[in-house]
Amino acid sequence: MADILASLRSLMASQSPPLDALLVPSEDYHQSEYVSARDKRREFVSGFTGSAGLALITKNEARLWTDGRYFLQATQQLSDQWKLMRIGEDPPLDVWMSDNLQKEAAIGIDPWCVSVDTAQRWERAFAKKNQKLVQTSTNLVDEIWKNRPPAEINPAVDHPLEFAGRSVAEKLKALREKLSSEKARGIIITALDEVAWLYNIRGSDVSYSPVVHAFAIVTLNSAFLYVDKRKVSSKVSSSLQANGIEVREYGAVSSDAAMLASNQLDQATGVNFGQNGVCQNDTCDNDLIWVDPASCCYALFSKLDANKVLLQQSPLALAKALKNPVELDGLKNAHIRDGAAVVQYLVWLDKQMQEIYGASGYFLEGEVTSKKIPNAPCRETMKLTEVSVSDKLEGFRASKEAKTCAELDPNSIYLFDSGAQYLDGTTDITRTVHFGKPSAHEKACYTSVLKGHIALGNARFPNGTNGYSLDILARIPLWRYGLDYRHGTGHGIGSYLNVHEGPHQISFRPQARNVPLQVSMTVTDEPGYYEDGNFGIRLENVLVIKEADTEFNFGDKGYLSFEHITWAPYQIKLIDLSILTPEEIQWLNRYHSKCREILAPSLHKNEMEWLKKATEPVSA
Amino acid sequence: MADILASLRSLMASQSPPLDALLVPSEDYHQSEYVSARDKRREFVSGFTGSAGLALITKNEARLWTDGRYFLQATQQLSDQWKLMRIGEDPPLDVWMSDNLQKEAAIGIDPWCVSVDTAQRWERAFAKKNQKLVQTSTNLVDEIWKNRPPAEINPAVDHPLEFAGRSVAEKLKALREKLSSEKARGIIITALDEVAWLYNIRGSDVSYSPVVHAFAIVTLNSAFLYVDKRKVSSKVSSSLQANGIEVREYGAVSSDAAMLASNQLDQATGVNFGQNGVCQNDTCDNDLIWVDPASCCYALFSKLDANKVLLQQSPLALAKALKNPVELDGLKNAHIRDGAAVVQYLVWLDKQMQEIYGASGYFLEGEVTSKKIPNAPCRETMKLTEVSVSDKLEGFRASKEAKTCAELDPNSIYLFDSGAQYLDGTTDITRTVHFGKPSAHEKACYTSVLKGHIALGNARFPNGTNGYSLDILARIPLWRYGLDYRHGTGHGIGSYLNVHEGPHQISFRPQARNVPLQVSMTVTDEPGYYEDGNFGIRLENVLVIKEADTEFNFGDKGYLSFEHITWAPYQIKLIDLSILTPEEIQWLNRYHSKCREILAPSLHKNEMEWLKKATEPVSA
Repeated sequence: MADILASLRSLMASQSPPLDALLVPSEDYHQSEYVSARDKRREFVSGFTGSAGLALITKNEARLWTDGRYFLQATQQLSDQWKLMRIGEDPPLDVWMSDNLQKEAAIGIDPWCVSVDTAQRWERAFAKKNQKLVQTSTNLVDEIWKNRPPAEINPAVDHPLEFAGRSVAEKLKALREKLSSEKARGIIITALDEVAWLYNIRGSDVSYSPVVHAFAIVTLNSAFLYVDKRKVSSKVSSSLQANGIEVREYGAVSSDAAMLASNQLDQATGVNFGQNGVCQNDTCDNDLIWVDPASCCYALFSKLDANKVLLQQSPLALAKALKNPVELDGLKNAHIRDGAAVVQYLVWLDKQMQEIYGASGYFLEGEVTSKKIPNAPCRETMKLTEVSVSDKLEGFRASKEAKTCAELDPNSIYLFDSGAQYLDGTTDITRTVHFGKPSAHEKACYTSVLKGHIALGNARFPNGTNGYSLDILARIPLWRYGLDYRHGTGHGIGSYLNVHEGPHQISFRPQARNVPLQVSMTVTDEPGYYEDGNFGIRLENVLVIKEADTEFNFGDKGYLSFEHITWAPYQIKLIDLSILTPEEIQWLNRYHSKCREILAPSLHKNEMEWLKKATEPVSA
Repeated sequence: MADILASLRSLMASQSPPLDALLVPSEDYHQSEYVSARDKRREFVSGFTGSAGLALITKNEARLWTDGRYFLQATQQLSDQWKLMRIGEDPPLDVWMSDNLQKEAAIGIDPWCVSVDTAQRWERAFAKKNQKLVQTSTNLVDEIWKNRPPAEINPAVDHPLEFAGRSVAEKLKALREKLSSEKARGIIITALDEVAWLYNIRGSDVSYSPVVHAFAIVTLNSAFLYVDKRKVSSKVSSSLQANGIEVREYGAVSSDAAMLASNQLDQATGVNFGQNGVCQNDTCDNDLIWVDPASCCYALFSKLDANKVLLQQSPLALAKALKNPVELDGLKNAHIRDGAAVVQYLVWLDKQMQEIYGASGYFLEGEVTSKKIPNAPCRETMKLTEVSVSDKLEGFRASKEAKTCAELDPNSIYLFDSGAQYLDGTTDITRTVHFGKPSAHEKACYTSVLKGHIALGNARFPNGTNGYSLDILARIPLWRYGLDYRHGTGHGIGSYLNVHEGPHQISFRPQARNVPLQVSMTVTDEPGYYEDGNFGIRLENVLVIKEADTEFNFGDKGYLSFEHITWAPYQIKLIDLSILTPEEIQWLNRYHSKCREILAPSLHKNEMEWLKKATEPVSA
């Protein structure tokens, strides 16, 4: 690790101008939340493996900014050479730079790994002390990274209409209408899931996200896909061609963005603009290039004429979030299969915990004498072929937070946050269980989280309401005791795409105000409580937003509600029934009864017996 | 009315440049919410008497923008010449102007009656079509207003330390420290309640608000009060002088603002700046003039060098909102006296309704055969001398919403929203009652409003939480049925000052995010439900924010809760107990029991009997 920093610093000094600092973000060229192994540059330099974080290396310091989800993990993973900067508690990067770095400092960044928004925000902040953001011509981390994982050639595959629900032609048509109405003649699409969604293709370049490393450019007349051509089979190639999509090499996006800026890209294909680039039809009023400042990298933006750029959220973000009926059906089915898998896992785990480790099990509250289990049974270890041979189970995401499987202990709370990629939908579920005797405090905390989870999932609200407003519903029961959680409460979920998807979210973060919740969006409902160094609790269901069946319709706004599509029991043993309201108990019993009804066809007899017991009606 | 518009239009045409449109806002020179009779220009031109609204007169149209509280009232009051523009439903003014008024139109405004924020927003919006905001040199409405009420010479009075709790010297010291820390050398204070609060003076220039029409300028060394000197007795004058405050004529603020801009104001008093305006000490780094863009009028701002202006919320807004212990004691005592007055009023009204109008009364649910009451008994008609001769009862605010007293009917819901000004505090309370047989629908609505009122008032939340986040708590029970209300949920309340006070609020409006709720602030909790043309329900208590006694303190933020300081019963007859949770019933019983305990010393025996009956414990 010391070698890495030393090599980086020597490389920084050799740049022109020499760099006083280097920023290493977590993101890849596409501002992805989860990145491929060879894109884990921030992890390589810092040793911190969390999904979010920003590393700063100066001549004599190394600091890592990350958020509340990762404070504990970062403390454990960062070496002495690194200092953890807690977002929300310590000064943010721009303030720190201005307060601690000398005037006129040169601060290096690979412009492919930073968004337009972030780069511009830093430039403004650094300007206060005449500090300069310097775009490096290569990625300095890549240069010193011996044994960097090689680029894999994973095939791109068609995502058929029976799962996508909407053809590429329809999607392109709607996109071009949107471009026209915003006076744009083209858009650069950089988010991997937007490219995959628009062109109905999938891949396996990033673990847990079925996407292909690719860019797209769409103009009023043309459409391009920039991808390593070795990934594109002749079958995929011809269906792309059939939709008028030209496949070009991944690296060509850079020069094509410049061509787009100078109106030469369409010309090359002979459409719309004549030999002299003179407009041939009435769409030529449209002279803007649409770029999403949150996802487009600074490198591509820099190829454009800044005065002719429409910096606005990509229209694909909302289009992708509004699921079509085929996608909604697929998601619901995927969640039924996934719920059955979770129940099977719990049945198996319950048996393991009792038989091998002497725990009292899922239903009884007994003390266990044995200590930690050396090799914890994670959900990944299950024989998932039992679920259904017809499903393509792409992968499970491991527990994301404080608790790792290796720490599993029959005497303590076990949180599992997992998801799967099915062809018809992406799933994400979290349950928290205890196979021994939970403390009264653990029960109170679990019950408060459950109350928040129910309050949010049960809410009705008028059209126009955003996830910032709703966030508090999930926190109020925790706040009553002075408890809280540092993460957001809900995120959209893709259709066989990213497990975290915008543009909406349920959170205290300002971005949650940008987009109201709308009919046919998906969103998770996942409050939690993490007691540092002790235990973590989280409950997560996926919800679909639908019209609410309200008696009245004040203000003619239309009212919305949530439909739960996740099916798995809450552990009654962890609930302090005395602090649930009659309505909450009624909700719980109804949900459990639906679990039985919906999962029955997917379960074996013994699993169903277990589920019946786990979902027996309760009363206060 | 036709005459008024015709006269205005002819005056508009005679301006240089001739005006294509004239804007007539509701506000006075101080951006007051409630204004004196002679400042009711918008009411004079339009006939609409609501507190909020903006009139636009063009060559052939007249439109009035107002918000949801006033849709019904405006419809009733506006003549055929006027078109009502519903805020939130119809296009906002700036959009309308751009869509409907010709290019390069000249739009007149009296710069004394519009805030910097609003004027700049309009200028930007109008610029899109090269339309121009023209500052008129006189107020055109004043010029055509025959019989405009004359300026009254109401005396300014000292607000003694036993009520204010903090001396002028202390307040000035804190203000100057704030100026220094923001690199400002002076501040122009235009909000009437801020002037009154800072200088510990009160007046009676505006009904229901004990303020004096006055401006203030405070520099690091000097302090000025701009007021009609005839209002200032020698006693008040000497206590102002003792605090180093120079009294100048109201109109002098204009030239003094210009003097302040050119660094001549302090020079005149011989402090800080020498004969040549050269800095004499180390405070001269401070070269900004602080102006609150939301309250300062455009006229005064225009006297300043825009590059040397600190456009930021006045520091007095928050200082005034954070009540000191003397103010808090006073507020609590005022609310006890006011609660007793409300109970006395209800007892009296109950008797009236039964004896004179044959209603079944407050406690029984019987049909009444008689129709409307010709002269409705409003709270104002009470013999308020009964309350306590030691209290100075400054005035009650009349019912603000749909229902007016004249419409009172023993067969329908009666909402009274009233407040009083006591020397030790301002009160604001709303209760909704029925003296006959309420319908099941009315009960369901009342109970939903009550549930929201309880949920908000009962909330605990971490420091940093704003009123935008909390707003939803009061709406969720209504949203369940598809019901809602168009107004905000809560506002700060002054200490013998404005009944509506910022800078915090509980609302869906973006401004509610600007300032978090903090210990020792006051805020109302007043959800409602108004069924157009049918009935209105509202429940309002004043709350004080205090530290919450939570078991834990996650994140070391500190948790807050509300203390109710309003004491008056909710009408049990209007509550559908079957939709209250056990916690809500418990809260109600406890609150009612405290009402009895707290109001007992202030009530006569018969009133106490009535209150006991009104607050009998209930169960589901």
